[in-house]
Amino acid sequence: MRVLITGAAGMIGRKLVARLTGAGTLRGQAITALDLHDIVPAHAPAVAGVETAVHTGDLSEAGAAARLVASRPDVVFHLAGIVSGEAEANFDLGYRVNLDGTRALFDAIRLSGYFPRVVFTSSIAVFGAPFPDVIPDDFHPTPLTSYGTQKLICEALLADYTRRGFFDGIGIRLPTICVRPGKPNKAASGFFSGIIREPLKGEAAVLPVPRSVVHTHASPRSAVGFLIRAAEIDGQTVGPRRSLTMPGVAVSVAQQIEALGRVAGSKAVELIRDEPDEAIWNIVKNWPMRFEAHRARELGFVAEADFDAVIRAYIEDEMGGQATL
Amino acid sequence: MRVLITGAAGMIGRKLVARLTGAGTLRGQAITALDLHDIVPAHAPAVAGVETAVHTGDLSEAGAAARLVASRPDVVFHLAGIVSGEAEANFDLGYRVNLDGTRALFDAIRLSGYFPRVVFTSSIAVFGAPFPDVIPDDFHPTPLTSYGTQKLICEALLADYTRRGFFDGIGIRLPTICVRPGKPNKAASGFFSGIIREPLKGEAAVLPVPRSVVHTHASPRSAVGFLIRAAEIDGQTVGPRRSLTMPGVAVSVAQQIEALGRVAGSKAVELIRDEPDEAIWNIVKNWPMRFEAHRARELGFVAEADFDAVIRAYIEDEMGGQATL
Repeated sequence: MRVLITGAAGMIGRKLVARLTGAGTLRGQAITALDLHDIVPAHAPAVAGVETAVHTGDLSEAGAAARLVASRPDVVFHLAGIVSGEAEANFDLGYRVNLDGTRALFDAIRLSGYFPRVVFTSSIAVFGAPFPDVIPDDFHPTPLTSYGTQKLICEALLADYTRRGFFDGIGIRLPTICVRPGKPNKAASGFFSGIIREPLKGEAAVLPVPRSVVHTHASPRSAVGFLIRAAEIDGQTVGPRRSLTMPGVAVSVAQQIEALGRVAGSKAVELIRDEPDEAIWNIVKNWPMRFEAHRARELGFVAEADFDAVIRAYIEDEMGGQATL
Repeated sequence: MRVLITGAAGMIGRKLVARLTGAGTLRGQAITALDLHDIVPAHAPAVAGVETAVHTGDLSEAGAAARLVASRPDVVFHLAGIVSGEAEANFDLGYRVNLDGTRALFDAIRLSGYFPRVVFTSSIAVFGAPFPDVIPDDFHPTPLTSYGTQKLICEALLADYTRRGFFDGIGIRLPTICVRPGKPNKAASGFFSGIIREPLKGEAAVLPVPRSVVHTHASPRSAVGFLIRAAEIDGQTVGPRRSLTMPGVAVSVAQQIEALGRVAGSKAVELIRDEPDEAIWNIVKNWPMRFEAHRARELGFVAEADFDAVIRAYIEDEMGGQATL
């Protein structure tokens, strides 16, 4: 079992590498080779019996994708991409990396003439307002960002390349990943993680939107679980609609904060300061709230049962099991 | 008013050129220049006061699209494309012409830094079975052909380029065009026109599917009307969802044949021979039947009221007003 991961230096990529090397198997077979690709060198864990190669570069450059799949990886996790805000700020970069890079990878596999499982990370950004309260699996995708447009286009390519037998593709539309480890960032969604992460280490956090905002979250641990499940699922059971909206925990910000109180106590909650930010609110108020994710659940994709579990996953995976508050 | 038409040598392209030169105006302005592009030389009508240029080539070739929009046409009708069967048979050709050619044209306009109306002919092939009896405007697009995939991707680009202010795009999803002039062809949909066109000139026609098959049609005349309307509509009224499912006449084959009897008599009807063809039936049975097309109707797109009118349009436009039966 040879596995290729693009975007292997990113937060989810690193966790996927750790999970795969920890398990040692994928699809019931021993992992014998790992190809880790990113624009910067990914960390390559030293694991006995696993041949690990680190590749760097831009997939959209001529020949780059062909070199990457020359070793014929059995499973390709394609996580690489420019994030939403950057794709909106830099039109050319977003289309080059998110569309041309993905298409180059898909075409390299097509032209190699072998048949791997390809797991593509899409996003709920393929959907655009106005939304129903709960977004069904067959809601029509009308993205309102360049990032969402690029993801939708790649979903369409994934389905067509799968239909034509070039590879066996599964697209997974990730909800917001929470709690993100690391430092606060400027992403409009950053506060969803910040109001949990910062108080857990005894630091203040700012909440820029009303506590009534409802949003769907999955932990990084669940996101990695989705990727593994997408690699292992029987492609025949999926049918021609290859991209699946992932499950998650739909909660209001108030419910996030209540869960924080239950898990870490009232001192953590008191570290959250409401500081309305019109600019962030204008972005967030157009975001989807809840998803049905029936198909994904039926196909065995599992998210946390409640937001308490999302917080506990963070404490276990990032804080050694103990909040430092 | 300068107008560019790609695919100008095709059936709809020729009729659009004839309609525009006949009217002399578009969006209330005199047409002073016509740029006609196709892979083969389009016929350029000699019209006093209209500067006409014929361009040939492949839009996906480097520099071709930039040369075409250098004259800054106020309205761009982008009709060029590889048809469905050919896009399925020749993967590379379909993606190169239908996706790369369209993207090259969109990018050439983006990089020119001016703001034309762009009318893009999409297709109901963006939808894939299973279907409801009547397909609503917000039905999710899940194409089951490479052609439909390419059209969906171009719709997504059209919406994003419009949202970002690179041009003012309108996509129109054409239903089956009927009655197509010319000779019988091998398209799976060919019989919908053949069972009308051939009997009208006293020739036999074969019907390969059950008479209960329901399908939506618009005449070539209506298709040209849709294009003109798409050029003239106020873009502000369309909102972010830039591609519209066009109206048409939804009838069963039996109703098509009844209309033929009313318009041309029982002798015409007797020239139709039922000759079931499993291969054609297997394709046609997965096609959509009826569309709501609410948005398009509200925005002033008009199709024939019934199939009798579709037949009469053919007799008027292609037979000098008189069936030769």
